[in-house]
Amino acid sequence: MTEENEKMVVTPWEVRGVIDYDKLIEQFGVQPMTPGLAERIAKHAGYMHLQLRRGIYLSHRDVDWWLGEHEKGNRVGLYTGRGPSGYVHLGHLLPWFFCKYLQDAFGADLYFQMTDDEKFVFDDHLSLDQTIGYTYDNALDVIACGLDPEKTHIFSDTEHIQHLYKIALRVSKRVTYSTAKAVFGFQDSDNIGMIWYPALQAMTCFLQSDRDGENIPCLIPAAIDQDPYWRMTRDIAEKMGYYKPAQIHAKFLPGLGKGGKMSSSMPETAIFTVDPPEVAENKVMAAFTGGQATVKEQREKGGDPTICSIYAYAYFLFEEDDAKLIELEKDCRSGALVCGDCKARLAKVISRFLVDFQAKREKAKDSIQDYFIK
Amino acid sequence: MTEENEKMVVTPWEVRGVIDYDKLIEQFGVQPMTPGLAERIAKHAGYMHLQLRRGIYLSHRDVDWWLGEHEKGNRVGLYTGRGPSGYVHLGHLLPWFFCKYLQDAFGADLYFQMTDDEKFVFDDHLSLDQTIGYTYDNALDVIACGLDPEKTHIFSDTEHIQHLYKIALRVSKRVTYSTAKAVFGFQDSDNIGMIWYPALQAMTCFLQSDRDGENIPCLIPAAIDQDPYWRMTRDIAEKMGYYKPAQIHAKFLPGLGKGGKMSSSMPETAIFTVDPPEVAENKVMAAFTGGQATVKEQREKGGDPTICSIYAYAYFLFEEDDAKLIELEKDCRSGALVCGDCKARLAKVISRFLVDFQAKREKAKDSIQDYFIK
Repeated sequence: MTEENEKMVVTPWEVRGVIDYDKLIEQFGVQPMTPGLAERIAKHAGYMHLQLRRGIYLSHRDVDWWLGEHEKGNRVGLYTGRGPSGYVHLGHLLPWFFCKYLQDAFGADLYFQMTDDEKFVFDDHLSLDQTIGYTYDNALDVIACGLDPEKTHIFSDTEHIQHLYKIALRVSKRVTYSTAKAVFGFQDSDNIGMIWYPALQAMTCFLQSDRDGENIPCLIPAAIDQDPYWRMTRDIAEKMGYYKPAQIHAKFLPGLGKGGKMSSSMPETAIFTVDPPEVAENKVMAAFTGGQATVKEQREKGGDPTICSIYAYAYFLFEEDDAKLIELEKDCRSGALVCGDCKARLAKVISRFLVDFQAKREKAKDSIQDYFIK
Repeated sequence: MTEENEKMVVTPWEVRGVIDYDKLIEQFGVQPMTPGLAERIAKHAGYMHLQLRRGIYLSHRDVDWWLGEHEKGNRVGLYTGRGPSGYVHLGHLLPWFFCKYLQDAFGADLYFQMTDDEKFVFDDHLSLDQTIGYTYDNALDVIACGLDPEKTHIFSDTEHIQHLYKIALRVSKRVTYSTAKAVFGFQDSDNIGMIWYPALQAMTCFLQSDRDGENIPCLIPAAIDQDPYWRMTRDIAEKMGYYKPAQIHAKFLPGLGKGGKMSSSMPETAIFTVDPPEVAENKVMAAFTGGQATVKEQREKGGDPTICSIYAYAYFLFEEDDAKLIELEKDCRSGALVCGDCKARLAKVISRFLVDFQAKREKAKDSIQDYFIK
């Protein structure tokens, strides 16, 4: 791995290198999450979500205000989305599970955007048929997360554009090329579809308000790389008569490769929801860990969970029980647990998860149309 | 009038100054129309249209090829449009009348684009509700021109975007900001809706081919100021698997003001199709002519029809009979005809035209939905 590869790059289109979250908070000018805010969310939900307990939501903008609006008895809304450029992996599910938690806690409608236009104009190698195909495929994953069909409104930028174009035009009139260039780093050699696209992503912040004829505070749970869109949107929201959207930013789920790398060009570094369970098990068994080179060494020196992708999957997703997680960490560090056993245990958990999730995914095919906006 | 005002400016968004058509042909790199081409069109139509006889179509691109495709027995198509930023005036009708003639002659489908998105993003003072309102209003004028409901497909960029967005995205992926900047003179301070819009106008060249699943040569009758769009479109057409669109360029109908000026900020310089006939008559009676200051002088020296807006209206639209037009010119030059009488005669003709056109416009309200694309 060269030094170049190590350099942190976090943009809406590229995330690579070792992520320094403190630096991101400073760079992006966002607020760090606080235990007090997590408590306030948990109070409404009735319990504190694993992702809140473990600091997976690292930062935010205006979550306190959004909570305050709910506490005043006002309606609040949620927005997240997906760039449908391939199959969904476990990392994508993180904020969707959190949306389900927030939807239940706040009785909030969720607008879920499939940015098939974005993926088409930004990627030379993807056709529109492909990105639209992934829209319908990935929607099954969204539904399988257990979201409320009455309160979940999935839409495709291309397939539902008749519901989106007018408000996107209103956004676009407020954003100069200079601004888009400054925010997204556009170059003159970029195509005009790319330059237009931010209007679509920004528009969704106002979509529920526009459709329901009521100014509804919108909260966006999403990975922090999407932040530039919200910075731009916040600058124009009030001029358009809407509230500034609030955000809560997730960390990235590490991949199974060395240094937590995950890459769609290396499918072995991610577990896709469509992976056959045995394939997923094999990926886990082949993953990079924080263990020693030999069992003997591991028993003597112990492992390092902080750099272990297996530990990360337990931490982010699969070990609900905090006491057991602490035990796992202790046993790893002490050498009581060797990587083979630890992997085998996670492989089974993930395998069971996939069997269950894939059944839900299959079932979602019957109700998919109920979730799309009309 | 200052020298600045006299300078010729012809862009898709602004036409002012004294128009030098020879210079435009050279600047835009288009072919001058020839009597041979006009004859070839007339042969298919069964007669030569006034606008062809009188050189109102001054230039073209690939009309010979388009005719050749028809002559080989292949389907051909037509495309024109309207920026719905206000009421329609007689100048707008010119190419629409010509489309009706071509539609009948070639059995061609006409795609008619209402660019309500363009007018909204380019004009600070227009709301989307206004431009969409004018779309429906102006469609009545299109229909009143007598176009075939079976073969005429009117659409609004905003109201029918679900039929347009995917192909517009495909266009947008082929056009860099650099190109758009070079062709349209965009500046970094322009909004991203403006920069996106050329994808919509270009897309229509391919819309019939895309909808019908067949590569159909497209001819665009339009005023010459729209040419930059077609230059851009021609550069990408073949890469997208379509023919380059052909164009035939109309001169501008002069306005009723001094020097043929027509301005929507000076409604007295144009006759709108919604003008009450008596209002139109008054506009004609108050128009700038090529006559002398007094009747006595006119009788002695005669007038100059080449600078007369009244003569222009007869020439472009209202005197079908070439012999009578020549007589009108002669009587003007000799002083046999004075301006008051000449105006009164045109005023009556226009008044009768409006009564008839407004009845057709009213009737169009019943069938407007038959003309919109589905």
